[in-house]
Amino acid sequence: MPLFDFELLATEGLARAGVFHTAHGPLPTPIYAPVGTQATVKALTPQHLHDVGAILVLANTYHLYLRPGDELVAQLGGVHRFMHWDGPMLTDSGGFQVFSLAGSSRGKSLRTIDADGVTFRSHIDGSQHRFTPERVMEIEQNLGADIAMVLDECAPPDDYDYSLKALRRTHAWAERCKAAHTRPDQALFGIVQGGIFPDLREQSARYLTELDFPGYAIGGLSVGETKDQMLTTLDATTPCLPEHKPRYLMGVGTPEDLVECVARGIDIFDCVLPTRVARNGQALLRTGKLNMRNARFAADPAPIDETCTCYACQNFSRAYIRHLIVAKEILAATLLSIHNLHTMLTIIKEIRQAILESRFADYRAAFWEARKKPDRFS
Amino acid sequence: MPLFDFELLATEGLARAGVFHTAHGPLPTPIYAPVGTQATVKALTPQHLHDVGAILVLANTYHLYLRPGDELVAQLGGVHRFMHWDGPMLTDSGGFQVFSLAGSSRGKSLRTIDADGVTFRSHIDGSQHRFTPERVMEIEQNLGADIAMVLDECAPPDDYDYSLKALRRTHAWAERCKAAHTRPDQALFGIVQGGIFPDLREQSARYLTELDFPGYAIGGLSVGETKDQMLTTLDATTPCLPEHKPRYLMGVGTPEDLVECVARGIDIFDCVLPTRVARNGQALLRTGKLNMRNARFAADPAPIDETCTCYACQNFSRAYIRHLIVAKEILAATLLSIHNLHTMLTIIKEIRQAILESRFADYRAAFWEARKKPDRFS
Repeated sequence: MPLFDFELLATEGLARAGVFHTAHGPLPTPIYAPVGTQATVKALTPQHLHDVGAILVLANTYHLYLRPGDELVAQLGGVHRFMHWDGPMLTDSGGFQVFSLAGSSRGKSLRTIDADGVTFRSHIDGSQHRFTPERVMEIEQNLGADIAMVLDECAPPDDYDYSLKALRRTHAWAERCKAAHTRPDQALFGIVQGGIFPDLREQSARYLTELDFPGYAIGGLSVGETKDQMLTTLDATTPCLPEHKPRYLMGVGTPEDLVECVARGIDIFDCVLPTRVARNGQALLRTGKLNMRNARFAADPAPIDETCTCYACQNFSRAYIRHLIVAKEILAATLLSIHNLHTMLTIIKEIRQAILESRFADYRAAFWEARKKPDRFS
Repeated sequence: MPLFDFELLATEGLARAGVFHTAHGPLPTPIYAPVGTQATVKALTPQHLHDVGAILVLANTYHLYLRPGDELVAQLGGVHRFMHWDGPMLTDSGGFQVFSLAGSSRGKSLRTIDADGVTFRSHIDGSQHRFTPERVMEIEQNLGADIAMVLDECAPPDDYDYSLKALRRTHAWAERCKAAHTRPDQALFGIVQGGIFPDLREQSARYLTELDFPGYAIGGLSVGETKDQMLTTLDATTPCLPEHKPRYLMGVGTPEDLVECVARGIDIFDCVLPTRVARNGQALLRTGKLNMRNARFAADPAPIDETCTCYACQNFSRAYIRHLIVAKEILAATLLSIHNLHTMLTIIKEIRQAILESRFADYRAAFWEARKKPDRFS
């Protein structure tokens, strides 16, 4: 198949199962990407990622631009080779980090935005930097992921006037990114913004569709709005996006987010949640979360999840994992990250299979039915 | 072969290659054991240990007694099952930790010793505990390693009078341990003490030999004496030990220690060094060490060691590993631990093969010859 072709294999309502073709192989959708912020998914080797069923891995442009530097990554053969991941990869534009991370450090405003770009200070050493659409394209092309994102402005989700202003900037920057982007083996995705306002989302989706990107992201969600607001915003957005292009919901989410957002037409997800909560001692289940530090697991010989086939659940008890957490051992983060990613990746695979077999509605109903049962751990 | 039989396959001078038979399989000697202090070799999964060629793994009785508790470990099926290591395992007696770790915390004496045993405070919560020979046997039998160690007193290496006093206690405790030890699938090793004093070492070796243990450790070395003193002490000790029992040099050591101590008749080693220096950003080479944090590696596309076949060297550049260290990523500790253990385990395998092929003298000479070359990294 030609690069960046998106084959739709099956649909059920708005839910879709497909394949997006990248220079590092086919991407079956829906798909969930582990996040390797600094060119490593924390506490895991690439072999672990492969073993838990990861296919697409995300890396963060803001972090890699600052350290070790995109030019160094390019000189070393690009981000795939740098971190030894030979499957598909995606980089964000750094915009979200500049507007949130760098913008909020210790209450001081560390960035100023203008029509041409954004000037910000590094969270590492306070040094000053500037991102313009053209500069970000240069950086992402140096990193060399299979999917790159345009520079966008991620506004607070519930300020209409600011969202409108940011949207105009985001659209102008999307055009400039498209013009500046030249790497033929890298798909550049547009990013729909517009906060929680259906008319702005629709306007943004239509504007970007005109620019004809090989894929579209939905940004500015999961940043403080309620779940209902997020889902309502998706309801207003995905129908305005072209059917034959993949749709990527940035920074989302939980098991229930996967089910509900696929039902609204999303194809690609990424989130730090599975690995972040793992380092905090939490295990994800289909039906909720377990705090593995809890004393009730101290002598529990059962695995985290008896239905799970991951390396952690096949070989270690809850008692051992709790011991590792209490003893502050690195292996706790590794085993819980393996389990949590395996859980998310298994759910997304099940969702895809259900769509392919025209039984996603049943899968979705059963998923919520299981959640209704009193959780014996909560 | 019967349990605890030690087959000598080849000797060259004092160097020996053999097999010690344990309940969890044969132990080819000479052998080097990674240390899993809290029932995990830090930053590694058991799969990593297997992949780097580990066969024997050590766990620390003092740490596991305090947390999670030896009875809990027994209840969960023993230390093998607890940490998912199905190869041979060894536990120390906790004596070394009680006499050094617990004894020196913040300058306060946290332990008192008498003829019957030692009372100490936990480094975790200050709670008071007591080890007697009988109690330690109970704990080690609960943990259930294949090789257990008698409780001994590890005295400062250069105080003759104290060493003699400690030696008498150590010998009395060895007898009591032997009498208290009943687990038929666990080999109990005696521990030779006597500081750096040849007459005390000889006396200790002969005394313990009389007690007829299935193996003998040499304790109280690598605790502050010089390398020359350590080797001289070995020269005085190993000839006094029975030929057809394995000899274990506790807490040693470096690549050069392996070569020199095998040459003096040692069969088993353990040391935290490879994994501890890994977490500090250091890579072990045959010819020295690399500080991987050094800026000269920032753009270096070569692996840590071009001759190395480990997962870290096969797949990652020095530049990437330096990036992980600078970015404080857990994967740095994992990859360097893999490399360092692989290096130590490869050296010990080469030594064994050289003895089997009657060319250990050449191997030893070549090892030191390589060290004479100016190290381009030091």
